[in-house]
Amino acid sequence: MTPAEDIKQKIEAANLEAVRRINAADPVLVDIAPAGEVIPGLEDRMILHSGPPIDWHQMCGAQRGAMIGVVLFEGWAKNGEEALKLLESGAIKIEPNHHHHAVGPMAGTISSSMPVWVVENKAFRNRAFCRQVEGRQQFGDYSDSALEGLRLWRDVWAPSLRKGILQMGGVGLKPIIAKALQMGDELHNRSIAASSLFANTLTRPMIESDVARDDLLSTLGYITNHELLFLGLSMASGKASVDPAVGIAYSTVVVAMARNGTEFGIRVSGLDDEWFTAPSPKVDGLYLPCYTEKDAGADMGDSAITETVGWGGFVLCGATGILSLVGGTPDEAMAYNREMRQITVTTSPNYRMPVLGFQGAPVGIDIRKVVQTGIAPIIDTAIANKNPGHSIIGAGLVRAPMECFKKALLSFGRKYGLGRS
Amino acid sequence: MTPAEDIKQKIEAANLEAVRRINAADPVLVDIAPAGEVIPGLEDRMILHSGPPIDWHQMCGAQRGAMIGVVLFEGWAKNGEEALKLLESGAIKIEPNHHHHAVGPMAGTISSSMPVWVVENKAFRNRAFCRQVEGRQQFGDYSDSALEGLRLWRDVWAPSLRKGILQMGGVGLKPIIAKALQMGDELHNRSIAASSLFANTLTRPMIESDVARDDLLSTLGYITNHELLFLGLSMASGKASVDPAVGIAYSTVVVAMARNGTEFGIRVSGLDDEWFTAPSPKVDGLYLPCYTEKDAGADMGDSAITETVGWGGFVLCGATGILSLVGGTPDEAMAYNREMRQITVTTSPNYRMPVLGFQGAPVGIDIRKVVQTGIAPIIDTAIANKNPGHSIIGAGLVRAPMECFKKALLSFGRKYGLGRS
Repeated sequence: MTPAEDIKQKIEAANLEAVRRINAADPVLVDIAPAGEVIPGLEDRMILHSGPPIDWHQMCGAQRGAMIGVVLFEGWAKNGEEALKLLESGAIKIEPNHHHHAVGPMAGTISSSMPVWVVENKAFRNRAFCRQVEGRQQFGDYSDSALEGLRLWRDVWAPSLRKGILQMGGVGLKPIIAKALQMGDELHNRSIAASSLFANTLTRPMIESDVARDDLLSTLGYITNHELLFLGLSMASGKASVDPAVGIAYSTVVVAMARNGTEFGIRVSGLDDEWFTAPSPKVDGLYLPCYTEKDAGADMGDSAITETVGWGGFVLCGATGILSLVGGTPDEAMAYNREMRQITVTTSPNYRMPVLGFQGAPVGIDIRKVVQTGIAPIIDTAIANKNPGHSIIGAGLVRAPMECFKKALLSFGRKYGLGRS
Repeated sequence: MTPAEDIKQKIEAANLEAVRRINAADPVLVDIAPAGEVIPGLEDRMILHSGPPIDWHQMCGAQRGAMIGVVLFEGWAKNGEEALKLLESGAIKIEPNHHHHAVGPMAGTISSSMPVWVVENKAFRNRAFCRQVEGRQQFGDYSDSALEGLRLWRDVWAPSLRKGILQMGGVGLKPIIAKALQMGDELHNRSIAASSLFANTLTRPMIESDVARDDLLSTLGYITNHELLFLGLSMASGKASVDPAVGIAYSTVVVAMARNGTEFGIRVSGLDDEWFTAPSPKVDGLYLPCYTEKDAGADMGDSAITETVGWGGFVLCGATGILSLVGGTPDEAMAYNREMRQITVTTSPNYRMPVLGFQGAPVGIDIRKVVQTGIAPIIDTAIANKNPGHSIIGAGLVRAPMECFKKALLSFGRKYGLGRS
């Protein structure tokens, strides 16, 4: 066997092990708890954010707006100006969610008093965390009415849901995800079915655990009218599912794709904790009234963890209802799926798509295949304003930058001697 | 203008009026009430059934079993033998649901103390009724445990839901149907999304109207775990939507397709109340463990009212998740839709299918087009046992018999002088 053949065999074996672990995942919602109590290493006066590492001065407008919002939400400052000063002073620690087993949509901001979904992967006993998904603060809107949604989540909705979750002894998410993927969800930009099924699941346990009537009515009003409620759970499930595949020597499988609105970064199983980054691309999408692409910030959020495990843009073909939001045609959605199967190691035995004759979702992005084929992962996502202070302005499709995969492959070659064969 | 051209113009105008009325429908769930209180002409000691008129001795095994079940449920007899004697004596009146603005799944049996969904078409002020959908008694199972589901419906679930519905002042079904058709439902054999959305809608109002805790928990357990819950509502919505299109002179649009397990019958807008029947066909389907096609009864139920308004088999292409239940491939499902567009007058402006680039569901089956093209409407349906005493045994696809449409066209020619031109 030549050295090249030897390495190739090692890579293929490592990649099979990576997708074996991803496919064996069994994500279960075990709690909702204040982030400071459950996320390892999350300190007071620290804010976690989406994407690869970044400092305050490099952050895009939407992420800066969201950071200001969190400072106000935590009561670390009295108004936007004070919050801005505090952030510019460097007194607030800033770290990526992905360094703490966490993920967050859009700006992704998580701070200690924010309740987060706690998802345990029962197959490997690891936990992952995701914050509440909403349409305002996480997009950079730090107005008092935007923060009111966070306060209700902290004070009413999360504590009520927590009672129901504990009453049930945890909520298995794998069955909900499998069903929802057969109900027109792709679990990134569209989770209407999963959200509805999840609300159905929690209703009785909340009543059984004697949540107070007003809190119950408020919480039911929230969960039965929030079509993206489940995105926080699909993100936490994705993170919990992929984390056991981190750190497998020789594996070229992608274990994170995340964007902070300035940079797009990926991490690779066999390449430790290194981020491979490129400028965050513009999203090709449709805009809400009064907005155009001139208002748009670049691609942002940890939500591409859903594509990392094979959902989102990878299974857009099964979620064509979303095309009215992100643009494109059913044929294009099918073509994306065919492409994604070219750059992945396998398909999911659990998450099967009826529209593909019950073939599984494509799992395990292989950086070699991405570079060889020139096919970059497709992501469907929301669009934030380029300036702070705004809510969601649109949604669309974006390709992960090829540069990230090329950089990763070069690093892989250096580490494992791929170039010497 | 020749007489033939004149008649053709009259037909086309009448058909456009028929589909205008169908598309203008606005079905709203206004109540659940005992059938005897709300269904016009439903007397004591009367049982309504699915399909065209039939007498006891012609009924198939499953429908006979269901009739026995209703006699026991109403307390008109103490055991199966007594019930059988009573039915054979002719002491129980038997009439089709469709003669009472009602519809029922499978055997379709409705009697006076059974609570039925009351759906009002707000655009035309007409009402339609459908009974509870379940998987046992309506298939001919008259065991005590099968009837327990009917008793719980009568005593706990329907009264609790009624409180919620009245608290809300009615539940608009058009938005739920439109959403569900974009969530992988076809609203005949698959209504998992609509059922989930509907359960979410009723939860808060039931709490607000102070349904007793035990009844509430029982009812929530029922509605959040019943994936075909909404079928009763899609059937009542279909019936309420199409009834205003009945009786339009010169219209060749089908206003009912219904089967009693012995005969398949259709009614046509311009042909008054006449039924055009043929032997009920066998369903081509998949069977539950322990059953084969040798056990199967013929096609049965009023549920083809969903296809009559363009759902069910007509939009199977948007509900490919059901193919694991009824068989077939996504390509075949797309082909059915293309065929159905060839035999219908128009498409729905309300009920749009993402997988077809948001084209509407095919609406208004034209008996002329069916006969001219040789394409019979496709229906996806459940399968009952040929003998009384069994629950559901399978599900599959079936074509409406061409003979019904040929008979109707001949009758149309006689009535409107089509043959003389």
